Amino acid sequence: MKRFEIVPNFSEGRRQEVIDALCDCYRDEPGSLLLDYEFDQDHNRCVLTAVGTKEALIEATLRACRIAMREIDLNRHEGGHPRMGALDVLPFLPLEDATMEDAVEAAHALGQRMWDELQIPVYYYEEASIGPKRLLPQIRKGNFEGLREAVKTDASRRPDVGGPDLHPTFGASVLGARKPLVAFNVYLRTLDLDIAKAIAKSVRESSGGLRNVRAIAIDTTAQGTVQVSMNLVDVEETPIYRAFDFVAAEAAHHGVSVSHAEIVGLVPLAAMLAVATRSLRLQGFHEQQVLEVRLAREGRSE
Amino acid sequence: MKRFEIVPNFSEGRRQEVIDALCDCYRDEPGSLLLDYEFDQDHNRCVLTAVGTKEALIEATLRACRIAMREIDLNRHEGGHPRMGALDVLPFLPLEDATMEDAVEAAHALGQRMWDELQIPVYYYEEASIGPKRLLPQIRKGNFEGLREAVKTDASRRPDVGGPDLHPTFGASVLGARKPLVAFNVYLRTLDLDIAKAIAKSVRESSGGLRNVRAIAIDTTAQGTVQVSMNLVDVEETPIYRAFDFVAAEAAHHGVSVSHAEIVGLVPLAAMLAVATRSLRLQGFHEQQVLEVRLAREGRSE
Repeated sequence: MKRFEIVPNFSEGRRQEVIDALCDCYRDEPGSLLLDYEFDQDHNRCVLTAVGTKEALIEATLRACRIAMREIDLNRHEGGHPRMGALDVLPFLPLEDATMEDAVEAAHALGQRMWDELQIPVYYYEEASIGPKRLLPQIRKGNFEGLREAVKTDASRRPDVGGPDLHPTFGASVLGARKPLVAFNVYLRTLDLDIAKAIAKSVRESSGGLRNVRAIAIDTTAQGTVQVSMNLVDVEETPIYRAFDFVAAEAAHHGVSVSHAEIVGLVPLAAMLAVATRSLRLQGFHEQQVLEVRLAREGRSE
Repeated sequence: MKRFEIVPNFSEGRRQEVIDALCDCYRDEPGSLLLDYEFDQDHNRCVLTAVGTKEALIEATLRACRIAMREIDLNRHEGGHPRMGALDVLPFLPLEDATMEDAVEAAHALGQRMWDELQIPVYYYEEASIGPKRLLPQIRKGNFEGLREAVKTDASRRPDVGGPDLHPTFGASVLGARKPLVAFNVYLRTLDLDIAKAIAKSVRESSGGLRNVRAIAIDTTAQGTVQVSMNLVDVEETPIYRAFDFVAAEAAHHGVSVSHAEIVGLVPLAAMLAVATRSLRLQGFHEQQVLEVRLAREGRSE
């Protein structure tokens, strides 16, 4: 079956009734399942996780956009997180038999309908980029207020679909396709935040570290530790154990040790099996040897 | 849902049409799925793996026993593997919401019907034992030929259900309940089989090693290695990584290193996640964080 995970980020993190109404769009649509939602009052933002078919997720998102258009006005929105639209960003992640090409197609289909039916301008990012691959911070630079002005004078900043002006209250949305991201944090037995900062700098791709790793240092000294907080954006290419081993080795150079680690949110099964396989030096191991995977597969073929 | 895995061992490993007929019993029964089957001509034995509800697995097994009674005569059976019945041994393993008590109940229900309907005497082993826990080798000691005589004079060797004499051609069956077993082999970079023997002796429970581990040495020198072949009979209590670490440490004492390892057949998801969790020092990690587990659970609740 071809299903996708999507992670819509809406610019509303304070009014519970609006958040509920957005969630209900994904709960009520046949073929769509709401897996999770989180919201943050300071960020004034909510992050939903839903899975489903392309068709179901597009229908649910269009309904959610209608609610967001009615309820959210970017001119009056304040919050600590960067944002440029009422639906700010939404990536499609391929699951099961779906490919990255399928996810790109789904993002493009949603974007076209958002413009055709709701006059929301759309930008594409990551794998769904038109032309050279673009990342979210490039597109969102200046936030709603800055981008609204930039599109008037800079053709390179105009939407991929619709526009050129942003929607006066909704702003514009960034849609894309990417692999599942694993949020992986490693805690170090020290109170010296500078060590976490140095390790984050050495591990992240952008400053010469590991490919597919984004990292920052987080102050968790209240817990007696400091944290290297990582987003692993391609755990097939750069597995979790590689990030762990890298951080542990760097920590040793600083004379500190790893206390523990955590995975925040969801992680693909294959990523966890890759860790176990390496740890046990398994040869020839296949996901179908996992009893539950086999049962799920056989159950479907009945 | 309460389902079970069963692993029926039949004393037929040479006639493909008989093996096929036995497999078909589990394939054709509604509510039962045949996951796997293996046979060995030298052992003259086949090992099936099926999953299903208690009712479906009992019906399928009674049908298979009728075929085995017609086709297999223990008086004329020869093969390298110990055996005492046409259906020699069959454990129930609890899956999903089923408990060990449920598995014991299923084994007892099957045993009663095998005697009532087919006059096959039955012994219970492992968790399904009546009274003190008995293991398969104790019950099967002397094979069909020896046990057939022993029951005439030794009350302690008589069947738990039916008998006291064995069935003249079918023999008797051993039914039981146990946790899933993980077949885990570690290969060492040496041609000295005595080192594998010494490590197998040190790791196995019966000679003072790790609880829940059975181990023998296997000559794989044709592949440039020797093998420590283990059955891990309770990977919740004694995880796979503990067996791996033990063997690796013992190997180091002998001056040799681990080449690689393998898992033969099926392994529970929780056992693999336990390896990954320890390797990454994860705290607070839960199986529900695995995307596929979450999808399977949510899918069921639709």
